[in-house]
Order: sequence, then structure tokens, then C-alpha cells
Amino acid sequence: MDKQRYERGWEKLMEIDGEGGQRVIESLKEIAPDLGSYVVEFAFGDIYSRGGLDLKSRQLITIASLLTQGGCEPQLTVHLNAALNVGLTPAEIVEGIMHCVPYTGFPRVLNAVLTAKAVFQERGVTGPGAASRE
Amino acid sequence: MDKQRYERGWEKLMEIDGEGGQRVIESLKEIAPDLGSYVVEFAFGDIYSRGGLDLKSRQLITIASLLTQGGCEPQLTVHLNAALNVGLTPAEIVEGIMHCVPYTGFPRVLNAVLTAKAVFQERGVTGPGAASRE
Amino acid sequence: MDKQRYERGWEKLMEIDGEGGQRVIESLKEIAPDLGSYVVEFAFGDIYSRGGLDLKSRQLITIASLLTQGGCEPQLTVHLNAALNVGLTPAEIVEGIMHCVPYTGFPRVLNAVLTAKAVFQERGVTGPGAASRE
Amino acid sequence: MDKQRYERGWEKLMEIDGEGGQRVIESLKEIAPDLGSYVVEFAFGDIYSRGGLDLKSRQLITIASLLTQGGCEPQLTVHLNAALNVGLTPAEIVEGIMHCVPYTGFPRVLNAVLTAKAVFQERGVTGPGAASRE
Amino acid sequence: MDKQRYERGWEKLMEIDGEGGQRVIESLKEIAPDLGSYVVEFAFGDIYSRGGLDLKSRQLITIASLLTQGGCEPQLTVHLNAALNVGLTPAEIVEGIMHCVPYTGFPRVLNAVLTAKAVFQERGVTGPGAASRE
Amino acid sequence: MDKQRYERGWEKLMEIDGEGGQRVIESLKEIAPDLGSYVVEFAFGDIYSRGGLDLKSRQLITIASLLTQGGCEPQLTVHLNAALNVGLTPAEIVEGIMHCVPYTGFPRVLNAVLTAKAVFQERGVTGPGAASRE
Repeated sequence: MDKQRYERGWEKLMEIDGEGGQRVIESLKEIAPDLGSYVVEFAFGDIYSRGGLDLKSRQLITIASLLTQGGCEPQLTVHLNAALNVGLTPAEIVEGIMHCVPYTGFPRVLNAVLTAKAVFQERGVTGPGAASRE
Repeated sequence: MDKQRYERGWEKLMEIDGEGGQRVIESLKEIAPDLGSYVVEFAFGDIYSRGGLDLKSRQLITIASLLTQGGCEPQLTVHLNAALNVGLTPAEIVEGIMHCVPYTGFPRVLNAVLTAKAVFQERGVTGPGAASRE
Repeated sequence: MDKQRYERGWEKLMEIDGEGGQRVIESLKEIAPDLGSYVVEFAFGDIYSRGGLDLKSRQLITIASLLTQGGCEPQLTVHLNAALNVGLTPAEIVEGIMHCVPYTGFPRVLNAVLTAKAVFQERGVTGPGAASRE
Repeated sequence: MDKQRYERGWEKLMEIDGEGGQRVIESLKEIAPDLGSYVVEFAFGDIYSRGGLDLKSRQLITIASLLTQGGCEPQLTVHLNAALNVGLTPAEIVEGIMHCVPYTGFPRVLNAVLTAKAVFQERGVTGPGAASRE
Repeated sequence: MDKQRYERGWEKLMEIDGEGGQRVIESLKEIAPDLGSYVVEFAFGDIYSRGGLDLKSRQLITIASLLTQGGCEPQLTVHLNAALNVGLTPAEIVEGIMHCVPYTGFPRVLNAVLTAKAVFQERGVTGPGAASRE
Repeated sequence: MDKQRYERGWEKLMEIDGEGGQRVIESLKEIAPDLGSYVVEFAFGDIYSRGGLDLKSRQLITIASLLTQGGCEPQLTVHLNAALNVGLTPAEIVEGIMHCVPYTGFPRVLNAVLTAKAVFQERGVTGPGAASRE
């Protein structure tokens, strides 16, 4: 195990995903601890630690990728929280989700928006509500 | 917002999806009201309002598309109800789902058939039961 | 091998897919002849031979399933030809493809429509052209 | 219905999936009994009864295919049990799931590993726990 | 047809996708002209015309969604050009694509990066080349 | 960059994928060299270097995952060659592909079998031809 990558990754994971990310790693301890290490080392120590794009852009991309493949509601929950953690507003998050309709159709977008609704409620943040339609 | 498209779409939504569709639009009110408007205006006001294919054919296509992408059980529930609403029989609906096996494999079809089973039970309609195998 | 299922399937395959289907079975002869037999026996001898839905409805469902999963352009080509063979008009086929936009988004629908355009051109049938938009 | 294929398939289904498979077939009885017959005859009577690959390899392939398409957790549960039934160890199963990370990304693999965790717990078998990382 | 939405959409389409987008609409003229109108009116007149996220963010989301679903290389080509048009640098685009590896795995990302390579070469822009790895 | 992981990964890549893998890494040099490093370090240095499953099983899993997601024909070509490199016979490879029919349906399996046919022809190895159906 590469200590430096792991530590850099853990710090990033805590900065971005916070408790939600920690819970994922812990859930793997008995069954597949190495898988948790790869998440920390590769996803966070390698990829999220790169320069070239800020964390807000990275979270919008993550949400788009997760919602497009479907069936990833648990991961979407973690990363919608992460999106708030790195400073995206609820309105920006919902806007990013809605932007996917022409590419994925409505069902995947509806699933993601309703997941976001649950995350916002649990966090006590107010959803965008009033439309920003021009 | 285009009143005419919205009204035509709302009427279509009520005709086809009924209460199930209304609940979807309402669930979006606080979080993404524009998304609800797009469902009404575009999916129902534009697409479902077109001529050229009857509503039974449209529902069979919708079910095939939803079951093939997977992870859309909530939308499948709405559109299985819609399929009954526009006059498809339970036997025709199950037949349409089973037709997808050679194209999607069994897992997606099993998920859709069991979703249909739950919808039929809730509606109190009798499933096809006896096989129509030649 | 079940002669009866195979023969019933082969007859259905020829009725529906015609030469395009025959070419698929032949392309498998050297590499995976059993796979060709399963297509004939199961997809056509079992599924397509069932009652309960006419062949036009079955082809609309097939096209919706193939376009939704993406990356199946060769199979879509065979089944767009089959759709014409069983009596669907080019306008109905295009209408069925367009109906999928709210469920799959534009990219998968664009790929299918352009595949249909190529099939119609090769068959010398005229595409729908003028819109049936209400 | 082809008695021989059905019987051979049922025997295979019981050998591999056991009770979990039986429950799937039973759940289809009222709604789509033919679909259950196709699972028995085609999936088990035709495909699983073939030579050329042992059952352990077939279960690893099944798990890889199910986890990759996503949204098939019920089928994954049946086939993780089947994997244990045919003699794969929990460590081999988890290793097979983890092997998919470079091809599917983490989310689909996390969903499968947590499904495996639940199956192993229900079966009372001990998960791999200690890493086999070199 | 809604003239205002169409005109707003066409202007957006030309601003973002330019010639590539125009070619898509033209390719639909004979086969499905309404589909072209929906792309213009809904995707560009409704969605891309919304406030709340800048065009750079929208293109990163579009690319993530297209690469994640796979089989959308023609649409990816249009939107990689669009990404350059709205001011994203080649390095930012490649960074956005690489960010998807933990979510989609390598194959989909490799397909997208090689599509980007072809687009950059045709546009005569220099790819990122030197790594921005920390 | 972690020299040890890179070297271990490169050795594995050459052992398994050979020239085909090398070409992938080289194709990334100008556009995304880090992506090539991640393939070597993570996919081959971390995952393929693990114990617990032999390389034949790993290649069967890889092929199942690639064919199931679809649109990965270039990667499938590399890994069908790799499957031969690690000692799987053409008959075992085709058997593994055909095993996926009940899970993915015929189209994805047909695409993979025809890709295998091209790989076997280029390598001058003889496909399975005669069926191993019981």
C-alpha cells in the first residue's frame, strides 16, 4: 500500500465526501478492505487530487456520470452531499441534473432529482423551488 | 411557458397516466418545478400528442424502453398503469414485456414482469395467468 | 436439437427478417453455430411464434429495445428491415423511434433515425419527410 | 413444451440456484408462467447444460454480467448464492467482483460487493476480510 | 411550432455547436424533420437557454453524460467541438473526461479521449500532452 | 508516479495484452499520458497483479463485463487477444461469450462473437466450429 497516495486520498475524501465517504469505506472493511483502499488511493488520491478542474466542476461531472448510468442512487446520495460540501448551491445542482434531460431522457433525471430532494431535506437546505427559467 | 403546449400536455398526461402522472409532477414542485413543466410540455404536449401511432403502441414502446434501460421501476409503475388506462389488457402488457427477452436477457424482463404483477394486484385486475404459448 | 422448434423458428425468421436474418445465422456458422440455432429456436421458434401481439407491435417493441440499449446498430438494421417486411410504414417506424426521446434522450434516437434513413434508402422506400406534428 | 429440455433445465436450476431459483419460477406462476418455463428450458436446459466451461467459471461470468448492467440486485442475490453452491469461495467471489473495477468503475462494483456482503451474512459464511493484495 | 422557442434555440445551437449542430439538423430533414425541431426547441431553446450554470459547466456535463452511456461517438464529436467553442481548453476537456474513470471505468473513457484526440487534430488545436498530475 | 506499481503493471500488461495493450498506451501519449499511466498502474499494477483468481478466470470476467456494457469493441479486441495469450482456447472464449445470452440478450453477444471471429482470423487460430452442445 502506498502510504502517501492513501493519505492524500483520505484527506481529499474527507474534504469532499465527509462522513458519507467514510461510511462507504467502513462498510467495506469486513468484506473487501482493499476495495476501500482503491477508492481512497485511486479515486481520491490520484483522480480528485489532480489540478486542472476545480472541485465544483468535478462534482457536476460526477453527478452527470452517476445519474446517466442509473441504479447508482447510493453513490448519488454521497456525491450530492459532496456537491454541497464543495460549495455548489442546491439551485446549481438541480440545474446540472436538469441539463441531462436531452441526453438521458426524463426517467434517469427524475430519479436523480428526487434523490437530491431527499439529500437537501436531510441537510435542511432549501431546494431551488422557484424556477430560473428565462 | 407556452400555455397551449402545457394545457395540451396536461390533458394528455391526465388521459394517459392519470393520478400517477399527476403525483410525479407534484413531487417536483418544491425541488424542480420546471422539470415538471418540461414533462408536461415536451413529453406529453409535443410527443404523446403527435399522430401516426395509437396510444396502445406508444405504451408498448414506452414499456420496452423503460425496461431495457433498467433502474426505472418508478417510471415503469406509472406507465404500466398508463398501459391499462389506454386499453391494453394485462395479457398484452405481459406479452410485450416477454417479447424483450431475446434483446435484453432475462433479468431486466423479470424486474419488469414483477413490477407489472404489483401494478395489476393494486389495480385488482387479473394477470394473464394461463399461458398463450402456441 | 429440437427439429420442430428449429423449423418453426426458421420459418418465422424468414417471414420477418428475411435475407438479413439468414445472413446473421450464416455469419455464425464457423464460429458459434449453436448461437445461430438458439436465435432460430428461442428468439423465433419460441418468442416470435407466440400469439397475443401482432408482428407490427413486436417490431415496434424490438426497435425500442435495441435503440435504448445503444451500440446495436447492426441488429437495428436487420429489424428496421423486418419492420418494413411485416407492414409497418416508414412513417410509423420513424414515429416509434421518435416516441423514445423522452425516455432515452436525443442521442440514442438520432442514431436510430439515421440507421433507419440508411435502411429506407437501400430499400428505395420514401421516408416520412413531411411532419405529422399536430 | 419440451419435457426433456424442461427436466434437464430444472435439474440444473436446482443444482446451481437451489431454493433461490425455485422462488423466482414460483413468483412468475400467476403472472407469466411461460417466462418461468423459458428460464428453465433456455437458460438452464440449453445454456447451463452445455459443456466447455465449468460451473465456477460460468458463475463468475454471470456475476460480472449482472453487476455490469446494474439494477439487477435481485438476480445478483440469486447468483451469488449459486456461486457459493457450485463451490466458489467468498474470497474468489469478491475477487471476481473487484476485478471489474477497471471496466465498470467503482459504483457498480460497490453495489455488487455490498449485495455479496448481505448474501454471505445470510448464509453465515465468513467474507474474505483480510486482503489478498500482494 | 413555437417560432420564439425555435429561434432562441437555433441561435443557441449556432453559438454552441456551430456547423456540427447545423449538419445534425440538416441530416434529419428528409427522414424526421420534427426531430430536428425538437432538438432546436427543447434541447437548445429550453434547456441550454436556461440560466444558473455557465456554458462551460454545461458542456462538461454533456460530455460526461454522453461518454457514460457509450455508443454516442457522433454526438460526442459534436459536443467536444462545442466545448472548444464555448472556451474550454483541450486540457480542461481531457481532465473532465479522465475524471470519469472511477465512475465509468477505463473503456468508456478511452473511447472518449480518442474521440477528443481526433477532434483536436481536425481543429488543429494542441492536446494537453504534458500531464497536470500533481 | 509510483515506479514500482508502474513497472509491475507494465510487466503484467505485456504478459497479458502484449502488443495490443502497448498500442493503447502509446495512442494516449500526446493526448492523455496520465490516463495511460493509470491503466498501467491501477488496472494492471493493482488489479491484475492480485492473487486469488487465475488469469484465465480474469479474462473471462473481463470479456463478460466488456460485452455486457456494449460499445467497447476496441477494448474487446484487445482482451480477446489477451484471452488467447493467457491460454484460453477459442472454444472456451466462445463458450464464455455465449453464456451471457440469458443475461444480456442476443445483440450484445452477437457483437462479441463477431469481434472474436475477426480476432481469431487475424491470429490464424481456428474457431470452435463444431458445437459442444450436449
